[in-house]
Amino acid sequence: MQSLQDKASEWSGVKREDAFAIDEVNLFQKLGLQTFVNLSTKFYNRVYDDDEEWFRSIFGNSKKEDAIQNQYEFFVQRMGGPPLYSQRKGHPALIGRHRPFPVTHRAAERWLHHMQLALDETPDIDADSKDRMIKFFRHTAFFLVAGDEMKNQNLQTQCKHGIQQSAAP
Amino acid sequence: MQSLQDKASEWSGVKREDAFAIDEVNLFQKLGLQTFVNLSTKFYNRVYDDDEEWFRSIFGNSKKEDAIQNQYEFFVQRMGGPPLYSQRKGHPALIGRHRPFPVTHRAAERWLHHMQLALDETPDIDADSKDRMIKFFRHTAFFLVAGDEMKNQNLQTQCKHGIQQSAAP
Repeated sequence: MQSLQDKASEWSGVKREDAFAIDEVNLFQKLGLQTFVNLSTKFYNRVYDDDEEWFRSIFGNSKKEDAIQNQYEFFVQRMGGPPLYSQRKGHPALIGRHRPFPVTHRAAERWLHHMQLALDETPDIDADSKDRMIKFFRHTAFFLVAGDEMKNQNLQTQCKHGIQQSAAP
Repeated sequence: MQSLQDKASEWSGVKREDAFAIDEVNLFQKLGLQTFVNLSTKFYNRVYDDDEEWFRSIFGNSKKEDAIQNQYEFFVQRMGGPPLYSQRKGHPALIGRHRPFPVTHRAAERWLHHMQLALDETPDIDADSKDRMIKFFRHTAFFLVAGDEMKNQNLQTQCKHGIQQSAAP
């Protein structure tokens, strides 16, 4: 059976070692907290104002300022900075915390579209850092698509099992 | 709705800030790689030899040496060391990767029982580090129980929905 990380690599076109090249440099030290706040603010300004209602509605139950904080705190923690996310919310548990959302291939591509533009609009991020971050984001987005498919497959198997049980004499 | 981290705190009796007091000290620098290898080896030696078959069987589809490596690489990465786990497997995604397993309250307590004994058998771990690690493990174990319950609740809701749909004319 193909692992989550193998599916992520195949679908994203990004090898795992390229996705985690974020760990070869301390991006938090290089870029600083404010750059991450700016990036997530630009990203969610786009998302909450997206013309594509199907994508915008995925975020409909969250406040924009919460979404921004959750995201930059995770990025800071994962990219060499203080563990801001865990201090406030515990484990990132990326797949578990995305369970309520339909993380489809199409949603991943739309997320990445907005993130690419947000990166382009954040001039404090140099070309090398941007390249590392894009690969990390692309691999991670499709890792979450793989997590979403696993959820749906489990649902189908378990429901079938449940229906067979209740149909038994 | 109670969050995953709130459930984890309530069930474990460990506050989030105490669980993540592992981040106040660099435990990897303090203890070194070999101590983490020793801890995970002692832990899984116990687990794979557990008299309680219901618990031992949870690990029945994994090789012991793989289980040991996955665990110590994650601990090293999370406790201040190099990102060994992500370099090899990608995101920890703790809830997602525990999805195949029945992470019940009873299983969490049994896991913690073996881990407490493994810590006691690893003399290189000083009392302060041990205290931080036990709180982290206890909170994390019940965080995963909360993740498991979320999975089961979703299954019930979705299956019911599916059954209603197929029962409709």
